[in-house]
Amino acid sequence: MTNNRFLRKGYLLRNFNLQMDLALEAHDLLRGARGGEIPGVSVEEEHSANAVIKTVTISDEAGSRAMQKPIGTYITISSEALKINNHAEHEQLAAVLTDALKQVIHFRSPLESVLVIGLGNWNAIADSLGPRIANKTMATRHLMGRVPQEILKGVRPVSAIAPGVLGITGIETAEIALGVIEKVKPDLIIAFDALAAGDVSRIGATIQISNTGINPGSGLGNHRTALNEETLGVPVIAVGVPTVVNAAVIAHNVLESFMEQLEHKPQLHQLWDQLPQPLLNNIVEQTLAPYTNQLTVTPKEIDDIMNNATNVIVKSLTTVLHPQMNEDFANCFV
Amino acid sequence: MTNNRFLRKGYLLRNFNLQMDLALEAHDLLRGARGGEIPGVSVEEEHSANAVIKTVTISDEAGSRAMQKPIGTYITISSEALKINNHAEHEQLAAVLTDALKQVIHFRSPLESVLVIGLGNWNAIADSLGPRIANKTMATRHLMGRVPQEILKGVRPVSAIAPGVLGITGIETAEIALGVIEKVKPDLIIAFDALAAGDVSRIGATIQISNTGINPGSGLGNHRTALNEETLGVPVIAVGVPTVVNAAVIAHNVLESFMEQLEHKPQLHQLWDQLPQPLLNNIVEQTLAPYTNQLTVTPKEIDDIMNNATNVIVKSLTTVLHPQMNEDFANCFV
Amino acid sequence: MTNNRFLRKGYLLRNFNLQMDLALEAHDLLRGARGGEIPGVSVEEEHSANAVIKTVTISDEAGSRAMQKPIGTYITISSEALKINNHAEHEQLAAVLTDALKQVIHFRSPLESVLVIGLGNWNAIADSLGPRIANKTMATRHLMGRVPQEILKGVRPVSAIAPGVLGITGIETAEIALGVIEKVKPDLIIAFDALAAGDVSRIGATIQISNTGINPGSGLGNHRTALNEETLGVPVIAVGVPTVVNAAVIAHNVLESFMEQLEHKPQLHQLWDQLPQPLLNNIVEQTLAPYTNQLTVTPKEIDDIMNNATNVIVKSLTTVLHPQMNEDFANCFV
Amino acid sequence: MTNNRFLRKGYLLRNFNLQMDLALEAHDLLRGARGGEIPGVSVEEEHSANAVIKTVTISDEAGSRAMQKPIGTYITISSEALKINNHAEHEQLAAVLTDALKQVIHFRSPLESVLVIGLGNWNAIADSLGPRIANKTMATRHLMGRVPQEILKGVRPVSAIAPGVLGITGIETAEIALGVIEKVKPDLIIAFDALAAGDVSRIGATIQISNTGINPGSGLGNHRTALNEETLGVPVIAVGVPTVVNAAVIAHNVLESFMEQLEHKPQLHQLWDQLPQPLLNNIVEQTLAPYTNQLTVTPKEIDDIMNNATNVIVKSLTTVLHPQMNEDFANCFV
Repeated sequence: MTNNRFLRKGYLLRNFNLQMDLALEAHDLLRGARGGEIPGVSVEEEHSANAVIKTVTISDEAGSRAMQKPIGTYITISSEALKINNHAEHEQLAAVLTDALKQVIHFRSPLESVLVIGLGNWNAIADSLGPRIANKTMATRHLMGRVPQEILKGVRPVSAIAPGVLGITGIETAEIALGVIEKVKPDLIIAFDALAAGDVSRIGATIQISNTGINPGSGLGNHRTALNEETLGVPVIAVGVPTVVNAAVIAHNVLESFMEQLEHKPQLHQLWDQLPQPLLNNIVEQTLAPYTNQLTVTPKEIDDIMNNATNVIVKSLTTVLHPQMNEDFANCFV
Repeated sequence: MTNNRFLRKGYLLRNFNLQMDLALEAHDLLRGARGGEIPGVSVEEEHSANAVIKTVTISDEAGSRAMQKPIGTYITISSEALKINNHAEHEQLAAVLTDALKQVIHFRSPLESVLVIGLGNWNAIADSLGPRIANKTMATRHLMGRVPQEILKGVRPVSAIAPGVLGITGIETAEIALGVIEKVKPDLIIAFDALAAGDVSRIGATIQISNTGINPGSGLGNHRTALNEETLGVPVIAVGVPTVVNAAVIAHNVLESFMEQLEHKPQLHQLWDQLPQPLLNNIVEQTLAPYTNQLTVTPKEIDDIMNNATNVIVKSLTTVLHPQMNEDFANCFV
Repeated sequence: MTNNRFLRKGYLLRNFNLQMDLALEAHDLLRGARGGEIPGVSVEEEHSANAVIKTVTISDEAGSRAMQKPIGTYITISSEALKINNHAEHEQLAAVLTDALKQVIHFRSPLESVLVIGLGNWNAIADSLGPRIANKTMATRHLMGRVPQEILKGVRPVSAIAPGVLGITGIETAEIALGVIEKVKPDLIIAFDALAAGDVSRIGATIQISNTGINPGSGLGNHRTALNEETLGVPVIAVGVPTVVNAAVIAHNVLESFMEQLEHKPQLHQLWDQLPQPLLNNIVEQTLAPYTNQLTVTPKEIDDIMNNATNVIVKSLTTVLHPQMNEDFANCFV
Repeated sequence: MTNNRFLRKGYLLRNFNLQMDLALEAHDLLRGARGGEIPGVSVEEEHSANAVIKTVTISDEAGSRAMQKPIGTYITISSEALKINNHAEHEQLAAVLTDALKQVIHFRSPLESVLVIGLGNWNAIADSLGPRIANKTMATRHLMGRVPQEILKGVRPVSAIAPGVLGITGIETAEIALGVIEKVKPDLIIAFDALAAGDVSRIGATIQISNTGINPGSGLGNHRTALNEETLGVPVIAVGVPTVVNAAVIAHNVLESFMEQLEHKPQLHQLWDQLPQPLLNNIVEQTLAPYTNQLTVTPKEIDDIMNNATNVIVKSLTTVLHPQMNEDFANCFV
């Protein structure tokens, strides 16, 4: 397809104050618009039994500016099995996620403490991934010193909060996080969040892991400013799953698919490529009024999708955080 | 706009096995396609303090065939206030709904019994309107004969069920309803359901009341066959609120808006009007794969929208069912 | 302890319109009151890796009258592991439950149809076991004839309903069940329900399976009349888990424990044994006013207890209903 | 009844690490044990249309030591109407609560900021009062400076958090609160919590308001250390509703009622009064094993009780925080 398609999508996203949460999608878009590789950005691909793992690495400032994302590693695990409640497949995916987390988390000691932050809104199902995970995370920080050493063998001090969203708390998530961090003094933060994808096929079928934290505008709901080492003073690992596509993106995609179908009609194409972007955005806005960028597209089975993604992530998180934990103890939280 | 737009939308809906749940929207679509009035169908409009009430009447077979809906009355109450949690506005809307219900419900005695059927899926928030209402309906049938007459003064025998959805029960909703009806023997059924709209502006801002029951294919989720006097042997009043727009409809709307913008480009238009419908449907399908017609568009505040609509409907329902009920007794269920 | 203790407990239960849902507890109580074995009632005990299985068999009318329960088999699985979210232990318990279910369920063909009935109240957590299980049961009845035979290999036609409670529906659960049965025409019914125990140690740690159905007054909440072969015309297997103890029972237990402590004080004992039962009931009523028999005692972790019991039961149910089902297909519902 | 009863109850509460959350109950208990008034503690009583308001004032150190509660004002509103979903009665109760809050809250300016803290556990219904209220509180702090002045007329900067419970977060609630306070810098904190009563008749029928904050051991789940001006550096108003009675308290109450019934039997009484307290505690522990102090007694309608109490409190809170707010704006949050 033509570079213009990517350029137009870029305009649209900015116009609707949307962002590609998935680095992989952002990279595809950018490479399309540029019509070639992006200096300072590389992509590697691996395959597991039931997943494809693609790692986008942004290695320098040029790459960062182009991608509008911080320098760092962005691992995307794609698997249809993530959507299905199948114990065996979930065990496999949890193992793949564990490998990915180990690529971005490097503990120097089994006693380094971790704060899990579950971003998003309890009351909006597609935005509830973070709170669900924080709620199911095995908090152990408060057990230290209160429970016999032998029982806590291989147990890392872990705490978990779900700070809520600005509209309900009246407080920026980053402010709450910073306040808690100053008391808890974790060595590492792992933040979980529901993401917005650029294509419905990714809903509930992708996990993104990055070592760059969470940065302005990203995430479903724009419910916070940056949560990264710069703002919080602690390394921040971000883990997200796309649960929605913004309706404006769907609207745009269908227009582009339409034009693709007509590529063999040069005069029509020429016309299309000459269309002023404001006119296109105007069309999308009309269609989505009065909601514009507040409309999300979700599959009817979103409830199952949330349960399955949460299940796989919590399984893996327990393994990563407490590698030598007593088997039974661990099972109690899977 | 051109008749073709309406024709194309008709094709699309059939192709995706979708239906216009709102008779008002179906009528607009049809009149547009026909480019004129529909014989056997009339529309009247009224205004209240905070709502517009439009009544579509299908008066003969010709109108019924054209509209693909049964002969009967379809009242649509439109109000932005329905979306907002404002006690005063809700009281006003409940009064408007009460008037509408009285136009289609004609009790011959205060002891005629009513069965409330709450259609839809508890676990899918946008499809949970029916179960929420059934759950909040004041069931009184079991009190008859067990509670002193003076307390039950003005209390009608009412029962309420939420039969669930085929995918979870393995039973057609109509089968469950019929089985219960044969035991409960109600004089009237009132069925509540979440609807799919043709435009996002109607989500949570419209209530449709009809005396024709619920008919195949209509309703979010297609979760049942007909529930009407013919299938159940009892008059069925249907009350619904649009809570979603199917993503395929959004996709179609944006394509049409696009073409409208280009109406002054005759050669482009000619081309567009000559496009084979299968090609257009194909474009929409590609964009929504792998979900096609299982993707719904909802505003982020859907949870509030459900609460507010339920609140107004339950307020009105109590008044309609138990007109002379003791004030305090009534309040306990509002 | 003295026979009188058992006699007094019997009085109390009748006075508060309570019943021992667990046949095992009823038998202990009765044997205690009688000071010996009960003609027509036998108990056998087995042990598994992490559970004790006791089978109470009521073999004749005399036993039935004494136990105030129908002739039949009552299997009680007791295991602390049922309360804990441990995958390995749950697999073991599910296997034990599967064996128990196979003792009371004898399918003549893999196509005999089953209707699962989930009794209780969605909105009262301790009473929600039935609805949770019905909701997680793999309904397959509607797939028959719509899905290719090879996929449905080993899949039995199963449907599932949660009829709700009288106070919310206004309809006796048995009426709803009967109405649905006449449409669905199942060969077997399996009814799930939350039970009330006579001792808090059984909460979430016991599963009772019986082939006698569910009989008047039993079950938390007294929310229905009998559901058994006599009333429904189909064999009814009942599966229950105690989730509460009635506060009146706790009150009684503490009084009895107190007297036990004083067994060596003959004059006190004499006095106690002479106390009129109405006086004792009066004491308990005063303490529990204004709720009397509507107060339930639950552990703070009741939410986890419900999740764990549901998980084990659904695992086992899938195996019992669909023995030759394709592994992956089955996993999707565990 | 005899002083000893009160002494015994005091022993029991200490033994089970329980506390009287309601100052009114603590005062009754203490006065009973002392057989007379408590120096430094006074009680006043008022009546409204549907409530009784009792104000316990602890005025000096002697009173504080005796009551084991800080010097301050404790207002208890008692009304059966709080349990019932009746709009008119709720309006009346909200007005009574508003008067009580104004007695302990003295704003110096309409711009003094407030942080609402909702204590307790989302996932345990009887402990979810705080999170429910925090969730329904109208947060406005984030609107300041972003919304036109005229719209914000009479709107106070308010923020709201639900910090969760130690077992799930691994962090003391006071630590989280302190961290957030240091960022938000509120002028006043209002903390909401579910309480444990000493008698089931108070469940859902009482609201306690105090200006002393929340102090160790009090509250339904012991889920935090002190939240008061001393620990947080900001005045803390505490508002609570009893939602449970600990089963150990019920067990104790029934033993005492029993002995009361036998007051005319001197030799029995003598014996009872001589019983060593450890023996009594032992009896209660046996009855409640394995849960001891983790068992709560709740009415079956706890879900409705939570909804009604939340509704009344949020109504009143909005009025107190935003006295001159635009009517419609306010309504949107009631």
